[in-house]
Amino acid sequence: MENIHPIFDTILKKEDKEQRLKQKAGVFWFIGLSGSGKSTLVRALEHELHKRGYLTKMLDGDNLRTGINNNLGFSEEDRTENIRRASEVAKLFMDGGVITLCSLITPSHTARSMAKMIIGPEFYHEVYVSCPVEICEQRDVKGLYAKARKGEIKNFTGIDAPFEEPSAPELVIQTDLEPEEVSLQKVLKYILPIIEKKQNQ
Amino acid sequence: MENIHPIFDTILKKEDKEQRLKQKAGVFWFIGLSGSGKSTLVRALEHELHKRGYLTKMLDGDNLRTGINNNLGFSEEDRTENIRRASEVAKLFMDGGVITLCSLITPSHTARSMAKMIIGPEFYHEVYVSCPVEICEQRDVKGLYAKARKGEIKNFTGIDAPFEEPSAPELVIQTDLEPEEVSLQKVLKYILPIIEKKQNQ
Repeated sequence: MENIHPIFDTILKKEDKEQRLKQKAGVFWFIGLSGSGKSTLVRALEHELHKRGYLTKMLDGDNLRTGINNNLGFSEEDRTENIRRASEVAKLFMDGGVITLCSLITPSHTARSMAKMIIGPEFYHEVYVSCPVEICEQRDVKGLYAKARKGEIKNFTGIDAPFEEPSAPELVIQTDLEPEEVSLQKVLKYILPIIEKKQNQ
Repeated sequence: MENIHPIFDTILKKEDKEQRLKQKAGVFWFIGLSGSGKSTLVRALEHELHKRGYLTKMLDGDNLRTGINNNLGFSEEDRTENIRRASEVAKLFMDGGVITLCSLITPSHTARSMAKMIIGPEFYHEVYVSCPVEICEQRDVKGLYAKARKGEIKNFTGIDAPFEEPSAPELVIQTDLEPEEVSLQKVLKYILPIIEKKQNQ
């Protein structure tokens, strides 16, 4: 059987999808402690970008841990695999032209480097959602800190597992020092120039 | 800290993304032997849909086995996990409003049922790309059948692992009986009414 149509042989590229979506794809990786406000911020960001016509995909513990990562626990090995899979999924979305917003604790330099390597350094954008652990623990929206203190959850970041301060995030948001709305505006100001599709690009 | 904006609490839904993309999302799962022509067909389909303004994502052995599934082999357990992860990734795309085209051998009823269950029966559309194993082996585009015959690859579907005939695919394409262009037109005719976004829907 002969291929008379080149479409049977070629694969659509990221650029084709970006053209269709009128946006530049990228992965924005929001790191920070549980309770720091990462997901709250990313949810609001997704709404704002949607209003402006951008297509985004949010990846977080909620939709990863209940799905693709539902056979992983919280051992060091499993946490690494959790981040590896998240990175690979993020890459698939980015290759599909989608602006991908990851909200994951990502406590170690090693895990962040792996994410960056899988996604590609030029497409990986790190945002640090910073908040002192004492305040995160006070908020304790999901009741996880209480459980960790009682020993019901092991290896809980900030309690009995370390969170390494990021060395070079592109943006730092301090949720203990400013209202959510201010944080949101900062992220928008940072992200819009990166995802904007310029003409002839 | 008080939430003054509801956008900090709510998550964008599939319907929001579909509205933005002007399409209905779904997962189209192309099953069939290695060499049956699944990926060739899906690549062409993706081009045709792109031309018509649809946003699609193709998931196949090439982008899954080299990425998210690169720590899986071909044992029965690993093949199940391969399909499970593919299904979860497909679901993430579909939840993001994207028309998802999976091209995976998926040799057993059990694997197909799992995919259907994960994705949701109403969003899982099975297309059987049918071709006798003798013809697939003659084509042997990737040289895999030759390796399987020599015993260099174990558990190769159609050689030393079974392919169960699907019981109720929504569409059957017989690539040994018709030119690629005819198959493509059949798939298009089938898929377009499903993904078309009707007004007020």
